[in-house]
Amino acid sequence: MKYINVDNERQNLKNIKIGEQVKIYDFVNAYDCQIGAGSKIGTFVEIQAGCIIGENCKISSHTFICTGVTIEDGVFVGHNVSFINDLCPRAVNVDGTMQTEKDWQMVKTLVKAGASIGTSVTILGGITIGRNALIGAGSVVTKDVPDNAVFAGNPAKLIRMIK
Amino acid sequence: MKYINVDNERQNLKNIKIGEQVKIYDFVNAYDCQIGAGSKIGTFVEIQAGCIIGENCKISSHTFICTGVTIEDGVFVGHNVSFINDLCPRAVNVDGTMQTEKDWQMVKTLVKAGASIGTSVTILGGITIGRNALIGAGSVVTKDVPDNAVFAGNPAKLIRMIK
Amino acid sequence: MKYINVDNERQNLKNIKIGEQVKIYDFVNAYDCQIGAGSKIGTFVEIQAGCIIGENCKISSHTFICTGVTIEDGVFVGHNVSFINDLCPRAVNVDGTMQTEKDWQMVKTLVKAGASIGTSVTILGGITIGRNALIGAGSVVTKDVPDNAVFAGNPAKLIRMIK
Repeated sequence: MKYINVDNERQNLKNIKIGEQVKIYDFVNAYDCQIGAGSKIGTFVEIQAGCIIGENCKISSHTFICTGVTIEDGVFVGHNVSFINDLCPRAVNVDGTMQTEKDWQMVKTLVKAGASIGTSVTILGGITIGRNALIGAGSVVTKDVPDNAVFAGNPAKLIRMIK
Repeated sequence: MKYINVDNERQNLKNIKIGEQVKIYDFVNAYDCQIGAGSKIGTFVEIQAGCIIGENCKISSHTFICTGVTIEDGVFVGHNVSFINDLCPRAVNVDGTMQTEKDWQMVKTLVKAGASIGTSVTILGGITIGRNALIGAGSVVTKDVPDNAVFAGNPAKLIRMIK
Repeated sequence: MKYINVDNERQNLKNIKIGEQVKIYDFVNAYDCQIGAGSKIGTFVEIQAGCIIGENCKISSHTFICTGVTIEDGVFVGHNVSFINDLCPRAVNVDGTMQTEKDWQMVKTLVKAGASIGTSVTILGGITIGRNALIGAGSVVTKDVPDNAVFAGNPAKLIRMIK
């Protein structure tokens, strides 16, 4: 893997550790993260510092991947998917001062190999999504998803197991 | 209609068949599609190959329109709307190789004339939305919507008929 | 406060009244609005004419803030949040002509000081969100939220009060 920096009219990529044959589309903002070989990053995607994206993943357009998210190999992330790393976000402290990195606790999310996250899914912070699990489009995931489970709805519930 | 190509810091438009008085806003990615006369395309929109958008449509910001979608004349598509063309998306095949165009089946979606799709709506693949139908904001549409029906919710259900 | 105009490859900012130490990230489209001192505006955000954003607010990536929205001081707005200002949007009139500003009624939305709006929340038009209220991620807000209330779900309902 190598590190790349791209600063042009279509991409703002800072200090990204990148594998072979990664494809990053236009209007992408990403920094201080890792993207494994063969993965594709769609248009209008933001990937924050510290994220690790495995090999052969597909991250679709309009998706937001925040600090604290690890995505293993072969994961499909649909369009307009949002991850979360703060369970109780606030702009300001009780005294009215702007919150800084010291004022909140980052929670981590893990998406295991081969999982698929449907379009417009929202994943709360601190969640683990199991291997080969499938999250239906438009779901809000509020608890861990076992391996090979199909979850859907708001809040997302078990629909069936993949045999 | 004529074909346009625009490649500048605000727009990446490739091979778009376009009618008179179409307005395309900034930070738009679109290719190999058709946009009818009088239609407006908002900021941060992606429109994929093969899409047909009718005349006098309004496609609002942050919306994603995938291959396989046809939108007839006079349709309102709200902000942050996502279409889907793959009922069971996966990044990789069972053998771990990256999926290609050969490895999945594209399903088509049709939005009939005069329909309105609210903000943040997600529309599953293979759906037909009827003439003048209205889809409430934040809905997840999982089945066909009849002409003149108002649908809302996750999953979206019939709320009432427009008289 | 002063007025700024920025027109470069990353930002399209027209006639924005801005306070001290405002931070606006890349790929942002905003015009004829006001942003108070200390506030931060994330990537892929659109802010329309007439919006007022208070001091020390955080507006996260992929969020859309439409005309008619007022956000007071110290408000957190998560990623992928959408506001609405038209209760029955249509692209065209009954006679098939494109709607103009005269053909619909704009409704206003107010987010009071200290509130937090979770990621992927959709807020219908005409809503007031109370002081220090918290809206759970993925919610669709269809009615007013009292001060200090926690709302979640689609449609969003009262979960508990903050003591």
